[in-house]
Amino acid sequence: MFRTHTCGELSLKNLNEKVTLSGWVSVIRDKGFMVWIDLRDRYGITQLIIDEERSEQSLFETAKKLGREFVIQATGTVIERSSKNPNIPTGGIEILVEKLEILNESKLPPFTIEDKTDGGEELRMQYRYLDLRRNPVKNKLIFRHQVAQEVRKYLSEKEFIEVETPVLIKSTPEGARDFVVPSRMNPGQFYALPQSPQTFKQLMMVGGLDKYFQIVKCFRDEDLRADRQPEFTQIDCEMAFVEQEDILNIFEGLTQHLLKTTHGIEIGKFPRMTYDEAMRKYGNDKPDIRFGMEFHELDDLAKGKGFDIFDKEELVVGISAPTLNSYTRKDIDRLLEWMQRPQIGARGFVWVRVNEDGTFKSSADKFYSQENLAAFAERMNAQKGDLMILMAGKASDTRKQLSALRMELAERLELRNPKEFAPLWVVDFPLLEFDEETNRWHAMHHPFTSPKPEDISKLKSNPGEIRANAYDLVLNGNEIGGGSIRIYNKELQSQMFELLGFTPEQAQAQFGFLMNAFEYGAPPHGGIAFGFDRLVSVLDGSETIRDYIAFPKNNSGRDVMIDAPSAIDQAQLDELEIGLKK
Amino acid sequence: MFRTHTCGELSLKNLNEKVTLSGWVSVIRDKGFMVWIDLRDRYGITQLIIDEERSEQSLFETAKKLGREFVIQATGTVIERSSKNPNIPTGGIEILVEKLEILNESKLPPFTIEDKTDGGEELRMQYRYLDLRRNPVKNKLIFRHQVAQEVRKYLSEKEFIEVETPVLIKSTPEGARDFVVPSRMNPGQFYALPQSPQTFKQLMMVGGLDKYFQIVKCFRDEDLRADRQPEFTQIDCEMAFVEQEDILNIFEGLTQHLLKTTHGIEIGKFPRMTYDEAMRKYGNDKPDIRFGMEFHELDDLAKGKGFDIFDKEELVVGISAPTLNSYTRKDIDRLLEWMQRPQIGARGFVWVRVNEDGTFKSSADKFYSQENLAAFAERMNAQKGDLMILMAGKASDTRKQLSALRMELAERLELRNPKEFAPLWVVDFPLLEFDEETNRWHAMHHPFTSPKPEDISKLKSNPGEIRANAYDLVLNGNEIGGGSIRIYNKELQSQMFELLGFTPEQAQAQFGFLMNAFEYGAPPHGGIAFGFDRLVSVLDGSETIRDYIAFPKNNSGRDVMIDAPSAIDQAQLDELEIGLKK
Repeated sequence: MFRTHTCGELSLKNLNEKVTLSGWVSVIRDKGFMVWIDLRDRYGITQLIIDEERSEQSLFETAKKLGREFVIQATGTVIERSSKNPNIPTGGIEILVEKLEILNESKLPPFTIEDKTDGGEELRMQYRYLDLRRNPVKNKLIFRHQVAQEVRKYLSEKEFIEVETPVLIKSTPEGARDFVVPSRMNPGQFYALPQSPQTFKQLMMVGGLDKYFQIVKCFRDEDLRADRQPEFTQIDCEMAFVEQEDILNIFEGLTQHLLKTTHGIEIGKFPRMTYDEAMRKYGNDKPDIRFGMEFHELDDLAKGKGFDIFDKEELVVGISAPTLNSYTRKDIDRLLEWMQRPQIGARGFVWVRVNEDGTFKSSADKFYSQENLAAFAERMNAQKGDLMILMAGKASDTRKQLSALRMELAERLELRNPKEFAPLWVVDFPLLEFDEETNRWHAMHHPFTSPKPEDISKLKSNPGEIRANAYDLVLNGNEIGGGSIRIYNKELQSQMFELLGFTPEQAQAQFGFLMNAFEYGAPPHGGIAFGFDRLVSVLDGSETIRDYIAFPKNNSGRDVMIDAPSAIDQAQLDELEIGLKK
Repeated sequence: MFRTHTCGELSLKNLNEKVTLSGWVSVIRDKGFMVWIDLRDRYGITQLIIDEERSEQSLFETAKKLGREFVIQATGTVIERSSKNPNIPTGGIEILVEKLEILNESKLPPFTIEDKTDGGEELRMQYRYLDLRRNPVKNKLIFRHQVAQEVRKYLSEKEFIEVETPVLIKSTPEGARDFVVPSRMNPGQFYALPQSPQTFKQLMMVGGLDKYFQIVKCFRDEDLRADRQPEFTQIDCEMAFVEQEDILNIFEGLTQHLLKTTHGIEIGKFPRMTYDEAMRKYGNDKPDIRFGMEFHELDDLAKGKGFDIFDKEELVVGISAPTLNSYTRKDIDRLLEWMQRPQIGARGFVWVRVNEDGTFKSSADKFYSQENLAAFAERMNAQKGDLMILMAGKASDTRKQLSALRMELAERLELRNPKEFAPLWVVDFPLLEFDEETNRWHAMHHPFTSPKPEDISKLKSNPGEIRANAYDLVLNGNEIGGGSIRIYNKELQSQMFELLGFTPEQAQAQFGFLMNAFEYGAPPHGGIAFGFDRLVSVLDGSETIRDYIAFPKNNSGRDVMIDAPSAIDQAQLDELEIGLKK
């Protein structure tokens, strides 16, 4: 037996007990006549002591051989510590060592195994097994485990059953690129890895399973943006005989349950906002509502005063930023320059300072009188000391740019409380969006989302105006979940594919298995999927997904530690009957 | 709202309540003046009634349109049934329908949606979404869910954390064939899908996570034997600072927990048997010990009596089969013929009948006297009415053949109680087995398994005799789990790879990441993995794994319903920079 206790559990209650501990040498202090060792395992740190008066000489010899991260086993007696450490649970005691064994040696680690390490990210990824020994890293994985457990507990209590769906499935042309897997038993043919278990969960609803969930790996062969992984985890859910309201209630409950069990926070009913309102008020379909700074439209007040830049544009919209009166003219210029960067691409803006004396100073004083500016301030509820920023342009672009500014100001002004959780349902998403590049309609959520019944008549006449019973759950400005009520009628599903540019033959070839299933008594159904990696990181107050994955891939999609992907043998390629192009 | 209750929950307690139910039309009985509908959902069946005296005429018209598997919504009042059905929880009541709506129609299903269906397996797989509506199928998935929940509950309580490991990893030459995944971002390179998370879990132990588990999909691109899936699910576990005894205890506890929670069965300490003993007594490393019929070696009694067939062979071994005295000579001949089939390939056997009067009749009476035969019977503890069967040949082959006979007789004589659970630990597996075909040593478990410390000295001199701290958990003759104590020392791991035919360069290229990790304070560790699909089926008293998978693949590795794998576009191949050979 390697240990009687872990390094995190002994206290004064265990005084005089004979114990055996195993773990890693975290720190050694050698005073010659006395040696202290901080022994570390997953559960904590316990101090070992060897001293001249009470310990055998041979222990000093073993101790001399030790280095950081050596794995040792120590047997001894729990004694009271003279100088206690109140910061750790074991800080009242130490172990007077009687037997000491080196279980394994360690080279000097390339970075310090401490909460604050001197290792850069790349090095820590290369030696991920050492990084995992650090509390901040280990604790994130434990947190993830706890969240997964609570998700399963909540959903099981609500009679959901977790069902595994296949990982080797059929490639579909919709959406992001599939990873494909050549089949040796069926040469020339390929499986695809699922981007989501969407069609399978719908088949399960046709199959009467009623309430399904799964915490499941999904895959996307996309060029990787920062902090996006080619393999990611979803909480995937589907329910039969439900309307949007039923789904929102269940998953609002799940989110409340998670906030309660992970943080002890009780949050009441979640606010809801339509997609239209979110875009108008925040220029964003996942607004962070921990702070205000909402948009105000000013067309009626700002146009027609001879200011050409505003007059000719579709939309004039502004925000009022608090406490920016300390901004000098130069600061403002820099802020406006920031907005003009290609990533934001804003142009056509005006600033208006609300002076402490109630007067206004603006960059367009030539066109707007103090009265005009006062009307702006009233609309925007701007206070003394605020800085109003007005922008004009094409409505959709301008809102997006102003949203970027709003988030930037929140960052600079520290308007977001990292301890606060502000959930929000965004509902009534448009069913379709027109893609200029491919010159056709795309499904905003996915092709299985149902139009709102009252909008079905617009399928031919005005597709852009159709709304869907589609919803996103937003937490602190992060989209953590999204779903919809689905189509469950073959005819409507066919129309949908037609609208998305499929020929009937293509639709049948790709999704016939689902549409055919709809002919055998498909119940009304809908669902939701949560990005589990993001959910966990947002719940933990972080936005770095990668930290919550034990062995993440880098931005080139590579597993750095194991050096994958890699070349494979010609013999293996031959067996698969594929060849590499030059 | 589609329903106020499910079809499984109403009873006499709900009398006179107004309820709304939704579900599938299971059965309609139309007497003209009265219509009964059995409405089914996942939770049960509730009877709806429409009757001339109490219901509106329009309901009859709607009812006339209904067919089997139509999806309907019915609102009405809970009333007491005149002829009750005590076999179902809702059998005391029925719903007097006031409102009836068809939510979706259904074509006539290709087979009956009942516990006993008329659909063949292929048809049911093709329409898996209809098969799922049947209780026996649905209940298996619910059972699987429950087992998964209990596994997670037990292991979490024991401080294991579930950590997700990557699915896109590096291809390794060991073991079964990997599925490979071409990487678009790294053309010419391939990921592999994991056959198990073995190396990752060991890295986590080096990383101090101490107790890890995961219920995880794994993949093998093998030609499929019956009831073996290319993607399968494992309960994968690893622990640090443990010896074999610690692991056996924890996972014996898990198995006890599962038997208790799924069947209410309390099973005490599990018996243990060495691999050697299992092979000698049962000719099998996963013996079903629900019944006896153990092997008895008879070299000393059966050789040297002039019976050439026995005299010249390595081993004479026999079993005594109970109650086979009813077997006629012809029956016995047929049994022996069965054993001579190429699949078994037995030859050189003798039968001995123990007559009711205590005398013996054997197929080798010329060579063995009544006294000789009595000695056989005593060794085998054969009773009156038993039939002894003796075989001779090369020891390993003969034991395998006799094991096949033992299992066949258990089947014919119904010696196995399907309600009994007989777990068994098989321990002390050999570390290596010599493969005649490739003329080299193979790891019996895997190359990371540690030799028993006392056998390490045989690494060079006598590899075949090295035993490992490797163990299998056997339940009713099925290997449901297997694991080992691992190597955690770089030098020993290198020696192991050398023995397995790797050059040092190959070993470093493939497994350097793990061996290098061993240099930074790797703790002693070990683990186990359970075949989850098999565990679930065996716990449910079945041996058909496929039934416990929502969307299984057929014997050609195809997802029949979605028709995968399939051809993919040239454009997609081009992007991956691969071509098909013809």
